[in-house]
Formats: sequence, C-alpha cells, structure tokens
Amino acid sequence: MTTLLTGGGGFVGINLVEQLVAEGEHVVVFDLQFPAAAKEVIARHHSKVEIVTGDVRDRGGLDALFSKFDIKLVVHAAVITSNAAREARDPNEIVEVNVLGALSVLRHAQAANCERVVYVSSGQAYGKTHDEGVRLHEEISPSRPEDVYGITKFTAEQIALRLGELWKLHVVCVRLGSVFGPWEFGTGVRDLLSPFLQTAELAVLGKTAVIPAAEVRRDWIYSRDVAAGISAALRGKSLQHRLYHLASGMDWRGSFPEWCDTLRQAYPRFSWRTAGRGEQPNVSFFLARGRAPMDITRATEDFHFSPRFGPGAAYRDYLEWIGKHEDFVANARAAR
Amino acid sequence: MTTLLTGGGGFVGINLVEQLVAEGEHVVVFDLQFPAAAKEVIARHHSKVEIVTGDVRDRGGLDALFSKFDIKLVVHAAVITSNAAREARDPNEIVEVNVLGALSVLRHAQAANCERVVYVSSGQAYGKTHDEGVRLHEEISPSRPEDVYGITKFTAEQIALRLGELWKLHVVCVRLGSVFGPWEFGTGVRDLLSPFLQTAELAVLGKTAVIPAAEVRRDWIYSRDVAAGISAALRGKSLQHRLYHLASGMDWRGSFPEWCDTLRQAYPRFSWRTAGRGEQPNVSFFLARGRAPMDITRATEDFHFSPRFGPGAAYRDYLEWIGKHEDFVANARAAR
Repeated sequence: MTTLLTGGGGFVGINLVEQLVAEGEHVVVFDLQFPAAAKEVIARHHSKVEIVTGDVRDRGGLDALFSKFDIKLVVHAAVITSNAAREARDPNEIVEVNVLGALSVLRHAQAANCERVVYVSSGQAYGKTHDEGVRLHEEISPSRPEDVYGITKFTAEQIALRLGELWKLHVVCVRLGSVFGPWEFGTGVRDLLSPFLQTAELAVLGKTAVIPAAEVRRDWIYSRDVAAGISAALRGKSLQHRLYHLASGMDWRGSFPEWCDTLRQAYPRFSWRTAGRGEQPNVSFFLARGRAPMDITRATEDFHFSPRFGPGAAYRDYLEWIGKHEDFVANARAAR
Repeated sequence: MTTLLTGGGGFVGINLVEQLVAEGEHVVVFDLQFPAAAKEVIARHHSKVEIVTGDVRDRGGLDALFSKFDIKLVVHAAVITSNAAREARDPNEIVEVNVLGALSVLRHAQAANCERVVYVSSGQAYGKTHDEGVRLHEEISPSRPEDVYGITKFTAEQIALRLGELWKLHVVCVRLGSVFGPWEFGTGVRDLLSPFLQTAELAVLGKTAVIPAAEVRRDWIYSRDVAAGISAALRGKSLQHRLYHLASGMDWRGSFPEWCDTLRQAYPRFSWRTAGRGEQPNVSFFLARGRAPMDITRATEDFHFSPRFGPGAAYRDYLEWIGKHEDFVANARAAR
C-alpha cells in the first residue's frame, strides 16, 4: 500500500516525505522537479520512496502513476503559490494547476478507490477575514479570499469537499498557517518566501539584514509540525469533520528579533537592524495585512494534533538544519 | 462601438439582446448555439445584432471575435448551470467553462482596452448563507457556496475582481436572484429549470401539474428585470462598488398558485393540484433549501435599478409571451 504525495518536491512536500518515511510508510512523490538536496534525502530512504517527475495537469502521467502503484492514500500539495506579478501575468496557469490539477488527482483517487485524500489548503483562503483579528474557526469564519492564490485554494478545497460527497470519497482539507522551516525554497512556483528564510540566506552569506520596522501579525507554524499534522490527518481514525486547521494557533509577533539574534550567534559576519525612517528593508514580511491566529481545537481533538515547535524551539531546530544545508539556503531564493 | 454578450444564445442572454437592441446598441452575441426562436428575434433586428457561434474556451475564436469587432463593452454570461449529476460526471468541464472561460474573456477585454466588463454571477454563490434567512448584503454576507456551480461562479467573480484591480480593467459583478420568464429553456448547459417553466410546459401541453406541498423560500426575479439591470450596470455613470445584487429583493413564497391559476385561465385543458401525502410532484422547486432575499439598495442607488415585475405583473407578461411562443415552451426542456 502506497501513499501518493503530489508536490512532493516542494517545501511542505519534502517535510512530509521525511515524516512519512520516519513512520514507515511507502511513498510516491510526484512533482515537476526535485531539488538536488531533496533527492539526496530521498535517495537515503530509497527503499521507501519513489520519485516520479510529472505535472498534475497531465492526465496521462497520472494514469500511468496510478497504474504502476497501489495508491490508497493521497496528499495533494502540488500548487502554484503566486504573487501579484504572476497573477497579473498568467492567471490561467494558476487556475489550471491549482484547481484543475486538484480535480484530476481527485478523479484518479476516486477511480483507484483510495481510502482518503488530504487536500492541503491554506489560511490564505480566509483572505480579508484575517483583518477582523478574531481567532478563526473552520465552521464559523467566512472565507473572503482576495488574491488568485487564496481564491484557487478555496475553490479547489470546496470542489474537493463537494466531489467527496458526490463520489463517496473520503476527502479531508487542511488549512495551513504560514509555514516556515527546513526545505523552504523558491521552487519556481513559490513566489512568496518567509522572512525567516530571507534572513537565513543573508546570515549564511554574511550580509546585513534590514528588517521592517513593524512586524505583521502572523500565525507561523514550523514545517515539521505541519508535516506531522498532515500525516495525522491522513491516518486519523475518528475524523468528525472535513476541514481542519493546521497552525500554531499563536500570534508570533515580537519573536522575529530572536530569530535574527539566533542567526547572529551562529554566523558572526551576519548582522541585522531595524529599518530606519525612509530606509528600504531587504527582508519582507510580504503581506500587507496581518493574519489572525487559527483555532486548532478540531485537529487536536480529532487526530491529536499538537505543534511541538514554538518560536524558541523552532529557531533552534531550524538553525541546526541550516548548519547542515548552507548551500541550499544560500541558493534557496534562486529559483524565483 | 459594440457590446459583446457571451452566452447570448442562453436564457438571460436573449433577454439582454432584446433589452440592448431596444436601447439602440450594436451587439455581438457569442454562444455555443442559438435556438431557432431566438434566431428569429435576432434576425428581426439584423442591423443591430451579429451572431457568432463559438466556445469561450477557444482562445482562437475569441481572438477572431475581438479582431473583427470594435468591442468596448462586455457582458460575460456564458456558463454551465450544472446539477449534481453533471457535477459528479464532469466537474472539469464546468471549471473550464465557468472559470477559465471567464478568464479568457477578461484577458481579451483587457487587451482590447474595453471600458467595462459585467460578469454575470449568481446568488448561488452565497450557498449555505441563504440558510440564515437574513436579507443578504454584498459587503456583509459571506459566500459559502456548496455546489460546483455556485463555487465556480464565486471563483470567477472573485478572480475577475482581482484581475480588474491588477489590470486596471473596470470589472463589475452582478449576482442574480433566481431568474424566470421569457426565453427560459434547457440550453444543454442549463440543468435547473424554474417551476414556472415546468408548469408552463404542462399547461401548453394540456396536462396536469402536481406541485410540491411546500414552497421553498425564493427570491425570484423576472428575466426582463434582470436584463434591464445588467444593461444599467453596463452603462451606469457613477458606480461606487464592484459587486451588486440584481434581484427582486422579495420572498415570492405563496404566489405560485397564482401562476398556476393564471395558466389555467388561458389553457383550460390544463389543471393543477398540490401533491397529496406520499404523491410525487411532477414540478420541482429544485433546491432543497430556500434562498434569502438579496438586498438591492446598492443597485438602486448606483444605477437606478428598480424591478418592474412583481408576481402579478410578471405572470401576466410571461403568459402573454408564452401565448406567442407555445412551440418553444412545449419543447423548452428538451435539450436537458
């Protein structure tokens, strides 16, 4: 029995590969491309992981994939995480990948009689609702997505839930908080990179970070916690709902200087400061508006989701990982 | 200067052709197909209307269309109005037409430097929110669409608004109430037909209508009012918003027997009754849940939208129209 992971060569995907392999699962990872560092990790677990290169828009490729492997569980994480420039330039491609790609994977999962499909959605689906500052709840809080990324995540998740009902396919959607941590990189389809990574890159290169004067309210979650949560959603025995938050549930504002100081201790040539009046920061929080924390009671109750990494623990773990992957981090933004 | 109307061979589309022609506009109607009766109407106004057969998914066809005509205003009404069976069978096609089709038309409108694009959306985008029974407001009421039709209408309208901002294209979205009236028919991509039409067909054929015991709460609006509203949204000079309701603003419950009696007076061979306990109606209200009335203050204030047809006036006008189009009505469901 095999678990298919689309987008398995991406940021969240590689974390999930590590998680699933550690749990003893057999995994097929499917993606457009795989960074060399990720291929090394995968090679280390070669008896447990198979790599298939392909595009979720290519039905023939998915046909072959589902024919070759006995896929019973699916995590669909393949997506274009777009910024405004890409949205203005090629909204069609974003819809084709984010919506039609999801539909195609669902159709194959249905035909293969899969036991469960986890669709990886995003807190970005809440859009404007984040502005209200109220802790978000899956049932109560409305979705008011604004950008094409958030709109297409909402669309794909809602269609997935609808088809799950019509097809009697067990579809579970998870909305992620803002993710950072090991394996974040500019995949070529990920336009928005976390300030944690931006700063880490400057640290490894021995440069100076100039951070924005004001932190934006943000529900960060560490990538290893996300991976553990998705795995739990994939195998949980008593799921009462179809939509769950996977977030830290916390507002991380005020902790960013601690990350900068953590980096500085390890990389003495690195320095950082807050942008002065009129000065242009070289690290961006990339969202004009803050995001309200997402309630994680459902995930905690139904599949014992419990984030292990708060700011301090996450920073220590990420720094250790960065120490082993300095070349990766120094080039992590290159693909953008 | 020409107005392009996609979906111009469909129910709302033909009403809009009549409206625009009456206002002296030059119109290009674009659709997969045109019913013979509509072609007759269009032929009567041949100096004002041009018919182009095509598919909104075909970019080459749209290229040719925009090259041939000096299109400055666009109404995008081409859509698949799907039921659950179609959604289960071919969700991809619905997304391709309803979302990618809209994107493609928007892209062409942008390239042609159009003055305004009206995207015809639906109250179905509110989905579950209708259940709250509260009068819906464009700004306040959240969208919780459930079926693929409602989800894709929401998606296309939100992407249209986003691209309007990014591209500096004047996009206006109108959410329609439940439409009935002249020119309603099963286009082949319209799965849900109003109980008014279902009953009219039975009347023309001299059969008996068995109507459901309970009416569902519904914000019906007469098709001629919708056409007048879309035209006003297309030309209004002082639009303060980007999303408007075009609805009657009323709950029509209790008026359906009046429609049946109106038909009976004109078609004595026709009869109707309410379904008895355990009896299967042959007229369906087709929605399990009611729909809350939609507030029309915005449209009234910004472009003087004011529905002329309440239940009584609509029934008289529709009956007169039916008298002139009995063959059309007798076959109106055939394409389903």
